[in-house]
Amino acid sequence: MKIRQIVGSLLAVAVVAALGQSCGSSTGASGGNGKTIELPVPAREAGQSDVLGLTAEPMDTVRVAFVGLGMRGGDAVRRFTHIPGVKIVALCDVLEDRVKASNRMLQEQGLAPAQEYFGDTAAWRQMVARPDIDLVYVCTGWDWHTPIAVQAMKDGKHVAIEVPAAMSVDECWELVNTAEKTRKHCMMLENCVYDNFEMATLNMAQKGLFGEVIHTEGAYLHDLRSMNFAEEGEPGHYADMWRLKQNTRRTGDIYPTHGLGPIAQILGIHRGDRMKTLVSMNTDQFGMTEYARKKFGDTSTYAKTPYRMGDHTTTLIRTENGKTMMVQHDVTSPRPYSRIHQVSGTKGFAQKWPSTGIALEADNEAVQGFDYQNLSGHSYVPRETFDRLMEDYRHPVIRQVGALAQEVGGHGGMDFVMDYRLIYCLRNGLPLDMDVYDAAEMSCLTGLSELSIENGSAPVAVPDFTRGAWNKSNGQRYAFTSADAAALGLTE
Amino acid sequence: MKIRQIVGSLLAVAVVAALGQSCGSSTGASGGNGKTIELPVPAREAGQSDVLGLTAEPMDTVRVAFVGLGMRGGDAVRRFTHIPGVKIVALCDVLEDRVKASNRMLQEQGLAPAQEYFGDTAAWRQMVARPDIDLVYVCTGWDWHTPIAVQAMKDGKHVAIEVPAAMSVDECWELVNTAEKTRKHCMMLENCVYDNFEMATLNMAQKGLFGEVIHTEGAYLHDLRSMNFAEEGEPGHYADMWRLKQNTRRTGDIYPTHGLGPIAQILGIHRGDRMKTLVSMNTDQFGMTEYARKKFGDTSTYAKTPYRMGDHTTTLIRTENGKTMMVQHDVTSPRPYSRIHQVSGTKGFAQKWPSTGIALEADNEAVQGFDYQNLSGHSYVPRETFDRLMEDYRHPVIRQVGALAQEVGGHGGMDFVMDYRLIYCLRNGLPLDMDVYDAAEMSCLTGLSELSIENGSAPVAVPDFTRGAWNKSNGQRYAFTSADAAALGLTE
Repeated sequence: MKIRQIVGSLLAVAVVAALGQSCGSSTGASGGNGKTIELPVPAREAGQSDVLGLTAEPMDTVRVAFVGLGMRGGDAVRRFTHIPGVKIVALCDVLEDRVKASNRMLQEQGLAPAQEYFGDTAAWRQMVARPDIDLVYVCTGWDWHTPIAVQAMKDGKHVAIEVPAAMSVDECWELVNTAEKTRKHCMMLENCVYDNFEMATLNMAQKGLFGEVIHTEGAYLHDLRSMNFAEEGEPGHYADMWRLKQNTRRTGDIYPTHGLGPIAQILGIHRGDRMKTLVSMNTDQFGMTEYARKKFGDTSTYAKTPYRMGDHTTTLIRTENGKTMMVQHDVTSPRPYSRIHQVSGTKGFAQKWPSTGIALEADNEAVQGFDYQNLSGHSYVPRETFDRLMEDYRHPVIRQVGALAQEVGGHGGMDFVMDYRLIYCLRNGLPLDMDVYDAAEMSCLTGLSELSIENGSAPVAVPDFTRGAWNKSNGQRYAFTSADAAALGLTE
Repeated sequence: MKIRQIVGSLLAVAVVAALGQSCGSSTGASGGNGKTIELPVPAREAGQSDVLGLTAEPMDTVRVAFVGLGMRGGDAVRRFTHIPGVKIVALCDVLEDRVKASNRMLQEQGLAPAQEYFGDTAAWRQMVARPDIDLVYVCTGWDWHTPIAVQAMKDGKHVAIEVPAAMSVDECWELVNTAEKTRKHCMMLENCVYDNFEMATLNMAQKGLFGEVIHTEGAYLHDLRSMNFAEEGEPGHYADMWRLKQNTRRTGDIYPTHGLGPIAQILGIHRGDRMKTLVSMNTDQFGMTEYARKKFGDTSTYAKTPYRMGDHTTTLIRTENGKTMMVQHDVTSPRPYSRIHQVSGTKGFAQKWPSTGIALEADNEAVQGFDYQNLSGHSYVPRETFDRLMEDYRHPVIRQVGALAQEVGGHGGMDFVMDYRLIYCLRNGLPLDMDVYDAAEMSCLTGLSELSIENGSAPVAVPDFTRGAWNKSNGQRYAFTSADAAALGLTE
């Protein structure tokens, strides 16, 4: 019901925008042609200012509370036991079993048991009010992300939120406004930016190997049908089948951040560039019904449900600086997993899926003097050169945490790199790798792609969540202490 | 100048459309939301009707004339010397040298010399008026495609036109109307549909291996900078640098057909489905200026030219049946060649670039009983299974012509397959593999993508060039004589 109301209010704005220029009214409309749908930007309250580069006092030990101990949360608790300077204070889930299991794991590792919260969907409320927590780590179903994070910030906690951090543009503004008012960190747990190849290509892009990066692609192409349609008790099921419900009542790209995160960093989104306009287009829904028929029978409720989610969604985004991003979503088709991760520039090219390769122009100035053989824009570098590039351009963050991350695991180590960096920055009073504007920018695609699709793929303006400060800094930065920067050979 | 005028007139229509529904006027506007730009559809003249399934009287020998003997035309003449039942009657080019060279080649093969036309850009006019020609084969620069083809049809000739057949929506309608009035064949020489993998995936799609095909992708990603910026006399140059001029004065996807052709056939465009709406987005231009600076210097005219063409263009198309197509264009960035060719369905998946693979669900009914091992929607089939699939689903057209095509060559044989099929169908009085509606549908992306981009990526309606008959047939068909169909084991 809530979602439908939000969509409804967006549509009202859309009509105003469409009428805007052509009929003389200027309410809500903008852009040169009167056809771009633009949502209103809420004004800041008095005294409220941006949280770009936000830092908090260094803390020797970070006291952490976890909400949601299902697929993602359970493993997060495990990973946190491997991070120095962490105290796991509290654990919360609707299900008692999950809380007990995580606590047993803590005790098996010789750690003090955490306080337990369970029993209903309000259990988290008490926990985040506790004064002895520094960070609330949110791994619930999507609809709980923003409400819990907002309350936690209001209760004086930093928050880390699983993806997407928000499910509508309104929720994105709630996160931004709350972070700006409370001056608390709000980081979305976009783990894929910490994957080795993604980080290497960021490093390459920032060192000029691709020249001017003009076009990028990301995606979440992952056949989740067996999990979405797993009922309570079946392996891999989502609690109360919440993910299927999302795919039933929403459309558009409701899970955009894994593909978007790495390419947003490469383009320096809200760090010198910003997403300005998007259009989104989806297919009708075919795959879920077909799967439901096969698994549950033609007359089953699942087979007869009118799923709103189109099987495949493509969103195109144009930036202020004239670059483009393509982001795709498909979780209901049998196809090999892919986040694409494509980077195309004036001097080079890289792509991760379906096969990984890097191409660099022969006369690429950025690698002059290096002993890279047989460079050509027309083909991928040979294996040996690829391996050398990956070694030479390994990102400092991977050099800092990579070896330990491989040991601890979690999606090939990237989950641990993410957790480690979060705690490292908090302990050292450094700006986090990603801020609340990243969370809002990446998450707003959920609502904006839906809005575009509901309006026949009409262009939609992407709000500037920094409200004018997107050009204050120059590119994505990962902060280090002076000692670590020196040890890593980094010069600022 | 001409182009600017056409764009200008489109923009006028666009504004009318934008005003349409929201301000109460219905002129030109359509779609549910009043924001889709729709161009007017010209009415058929009295007596004019569609040319779906058009056939002509069988002819024992096809008398062919060639216009444009540069990169594509010269090789086409060579290939035609290997096709039985062809008489090369006339050769035309602005440059005498090219005509002489082609004629020498004919004589070296022991064939009669062709009549020569050269000297200026009007030389073709006399040639296509000759009564002893059945087919005019047009390989000129793009802007001459439609004018020559239209005149040739009026002069009673069938025409085959290099890609794109037309450079604007108006030109598309000119081709359609002329073909419908003259009842002459008008086939665009979209060679990529004849490539082995593309044809195999068409065959697989039609036999149900991919289930319901929901999303497809095609592209023309080919770094042409060295050719576009080659001046007269440099290797690989275009006559009068016509291709650079196109990239200077146009924007959008002006070369869409190689990626679009194969996926349009798989979706059965105007054979049960049709392209309904598109949106297009491009990057700014970075690559051409950067290349021009490097080659010609910062103060050169080339470096200072304001190229309209964005480096990278993505177009999304939605079909009447709720499928999507993504088509990309980039000819100015260093990246490995790709036409993507992606086919995603409810039971399987295939992609050609950057690496070739096929994935089929384990319980895929279409391959039950076949001995394909280890099928899974989550990963590509192993090499051995891939090879067997390619063998088992080799398209009849490749089985008909493939061996000879490998011998004669031309883009790996696909050019020869195309030429052979064209002559085969003409000689046997069969419908051609592609008709004038294919030519119009694929070529109209040039004008429509430009129109969308000029309007901030606004949705644009794709005209139904069949004017209501897009649903008359069921899928792409390649015609064979009864004898050949029997020899190939085909049952209709």
